[in-house]
Amino acid sequence: MATLPETVFAYLDRERRRHLEELMEFLRFPSVSTESAHRQDVARCAEWLAMRMRQAGLKAAVYPTGGHPVVVGRAAAGSDRPTVLVYGHYDVQPVDPLDQWRHPPFAPVVEDGYLWARGASDDKGQFFLSVIAAEAWLQAVGALPVNVVWVCEGEEEIGSPHLEPWLRAHRHELTADVALISDTPMFGPDHPAICYGLRGLVTGTITVTGPRQDLHSGVFGGAVANPARVLAQILAALHDADGRVTIPGFYDRVRVLNSAERARLAALPFDAARFREEAGIAADAGEIGYSVLERVWARPTLEINGIASGFQGEGYKTVIPARAEAKISARLVPDQDPTAILDALEAWVQRWNRPEVTVRFERGEAAAPALLPLDHPALVAADDAIRRVFGVPALYIRMGGTIPVVPILSELLGAAPLLVGFGLPDDQFHAPNERWRLDLFERGAKTVAALWAALAA
Amino acid sequence: MATLPETVFAYLDRERRRHLEELMEFLRFPSVSTESAHRQDVARCAEWLAMRMRQAGLKAAVYPTGGHPVVVGRAAAGSDRPTVLVYGHYDVQPVDPLDQWRHPPFAPVVEDGYLWARGASDDKGQFFLSVIAAEAWLQAVGALPVNVVWVCEGEEEIGSPHLEPWLRAHRHELTADVALISDTPMFGPDHPAICYGLRGLVTGTITVTGPRQDLHSGVFGGAVANPARVLAQILAALHDADGRVTIPGFYDRVRVLNSAERARLAALPFDAARFREEAGIAADAGEIGYSVLERVWARPTLEINGIASGFQGEGYKTVIPARAEAKISARLVPDQDPTAILDALEAWVQRWNRPEVTVRFERGEAAAPALLPLDHPALVAADDAIRRVFGVPALYIRMGGTIPVVPILSELLGAAPLLVGFGLPDDQFHAPNERWRLDLFERGAKTVAALWAALAA
Repeated sequence: MATLPETVFAYLDRERRRHLEELMEFLRFPSVSTESAHRQDVARCAEWLAMRMRQAGLKAAVYPTGGHPVVVGRAAAGSDRPTVLVYGHYDVQPVDPLDQWRHPPFAPVVEDGYLWARGASDDKGQFFLSVIAAEAWLQAVGALPVNVVWVCEGEEEIGSPHLEPWLRAHRHELTADVALISDTPMFGPDHPAICYGLRGLVTGTITVTGPRQDLHSGVFGGAVANPARVLAQILAALHDADGRVTIPGFYDRVRVLNSAERARLAALPFDAARFREEAGIAADAGEIGYSVLERVWARPTLEINGIASGFQGEGYKTVIPARAEAKISARLVPDQDPTAILDALEAWVQRWNRPEVTVRFERGEAAAPALLPLDHPALVAADDAIRRVFGVPALYIRMGGTIPVVPILSELLGAAPLLVGFGLPDDQFHAPNERWRLDLFERGAKTVAALWAALAA
Repeated sequence: MATLPETVFAYLDRERRRHLEELMEFLRFPSVSTESAHRQDVARCAEWLAMRMRQAGLKAAVYPTGGHPVVVGRAAAGSDRPTVLVYGHYDVQPVDPLDQWRHPPFAPVVEDGYLWARGASDDKGQFFLSVIAAEAWLQAVGALPVNVVWVCEGEEEIGSPHLEPWLRAHRHELTADVALISDTPMFGPDHPAICYGLRGLVTGTITVTGPRQDLHSGVFGGAVANPARVLAQILAALHDADGRVTIPGFYDRVRVLNSAERARLAALPFDAARFREEAGIAADAGEIGYSVLERVWARPTLEINGIASGFQGEGYKTVIPARAEAKISARLVPDQDPTAILDALEAWVQRWNRPEVTVRFERGEAAAPALLPLDHPALVAADDAIRRVFGVPALYIRMGGTIPVVPILSELLGAAPLLVGFGLPDDQFHAPNERWRLDLFERGAKTVAALWAALAA
């Protein structure tokens, strides 16, 4: 392992309060990529990030795309040194239901040892670690031990529609040995982890339309097909009684879990009671024959994310709704193909069309699953850095979420994806009251700083 | 038939423009009884109506209730004359989806031979007929041929929760021979009708709750029961493949249609293509073995009126919703009992509870169905009045909608319900773009004026 001067950690300790205040500034931008009303907020957030990178001593630029911009930073160590690409995203999930937040989502607050805000953990806070780790090296040592290029996008939460063409156009300036991504959770507060598997994702909308407009259920009820009822029938038919998805072909390419991996997963210090507590559920559920970790990491799912139809206000309105809509999404595992799954979903949904109602399927996002090689030297370097800061070895885990860029970075830039995150499973990302543990802000920055020394070896 | 002085119709012809402008004033009050934000609008509307009754020469008063007030008007003809109670309602349905209205719902517009506004037909416009018919008699003749008492409530669209206790408390001042209700449609523009049957109504809300808050579908998806999926299963199970309601006991007390009535219904000039056009549907649907009219008039239904769960905004948000809710309603026919149906629904819904999710049923409104005697002399009087104004005999029809007060008026006040309406099936009541044909405003007022002469006989 290359030398890690003590002055780097000392700098991070000394500047921690300022770094926290800067992160809170970063979190105040409501950079919700899926809502067009926030387009300017997303753009302003990108400009702020580039400005902050320059303050850290990096070269930085904001690149427009067909959607939200990409922020790029650079710090050179020399052509004899390896190159690390740091990928992250500065966009965030929507915040509704807003009334369930204990603090406004874009007014960060430090309380109970946590930083509370949308994006605190996913992913502004975690991305920011690499910026201050670089600043520490540059201020304390004068140079970084490895070449680093930062790529921070603004469309991760909407499936990164413009990132792949942008990466493809700039691939020759972005060649890297390792792609560091801090967007995965640790296994627990005392269990730093390296993630070797991710699920993919497809989304879509099922719409059922019937009458031209909402109808009086007294005048027409009994002789008109109710789109809400047809939608309920469609949604109820997505799974069988055992919780398995019924779409023909859905499981065709699912890689079977081998007994070695099942044993490794079973050996992890998984706390089922804590999982239920984090989910806020009385009992878990799911596909028969699989453990909780297998269900969320290594088995595909099909979920209803939202339903809207007819009257939803106070009191009652006895209508037959003209329209019913559901947003659905599937988490995919190797070797499921997102396009093939969307094809299967669309074909299955279309079969519900009948003279009385029109049923449509609109395709949304598509991202491939990923399963990473366990024998890359970058993993050893990450384990070393983690041991140095946390005092324990890393756990090797998979993750149920999706990072669409991971399969793209490997394929396009040749970078070995190194997924080392500093969030926790109960950070409530994508939900109200997203938060991040303050001590992981400190230890995360040091781990990244140490990782660069380790990778330089 | 008692004399009907020509001056009564002449007065109505002469004052028609002013009467229309006054009706538009009535329609400008957003008296939406189900929305607490409109409480003051409802109260102001009641005061306006009482004022307008006094201008017509009636005694009028506004009675507070535990909810929205009741407006009462009176005109005496003498103790030797029969008494007619005119029942109506000045409250209206909610207006969403607002963006589907061609004109704002509370800014009445005359266009294409129609008056467009929420409440134009259901029921402000139709109730207003009896006020101007009384004014015509009082101005042109000096007195009415029958005693009339008007009872106009503000809670019909929410199931009239306070009307029955109010009627019960005032029953001795409200004794009447006939209760005239103009809240039912004609069979068609050239087919004035007398309605002898109404369906009842119950409403309720099914709520499924699971996780404490919306969860990330990547982190938790696969091991957590999705409340939206459970709700879809519940809603899909409400009916069997033949469109029959599956709730045990639902059909137990349904009176079987006899062959004489089926023949009479089949002989009505029903236009199936026009029904589909009015509904805005490509094909009708419903319970196997029954005609369209039988389905909407004489068979019970169970409809989903609205569903709400999870993310409903623009784009996608891959959550497992914490909660899913559906509003449902059943239209009932004789001799179904609303309370027994709510009991059956509640018991059936409760059975869906399981360790992973909590399922609740909240009871809403309850109103009994009604089937009226066909041999009452008031029906002959109504037929006479209709023939005089429309030049054709009345059709005897049933209706799929619900007027909760009808069974109460018969039972409590001994009044024979006389359901003669001047709306049309395509007036779009309860939907966007509610409207009323202007010529029925004129002919309706004359028919009511003529009816009073006929009833005096």
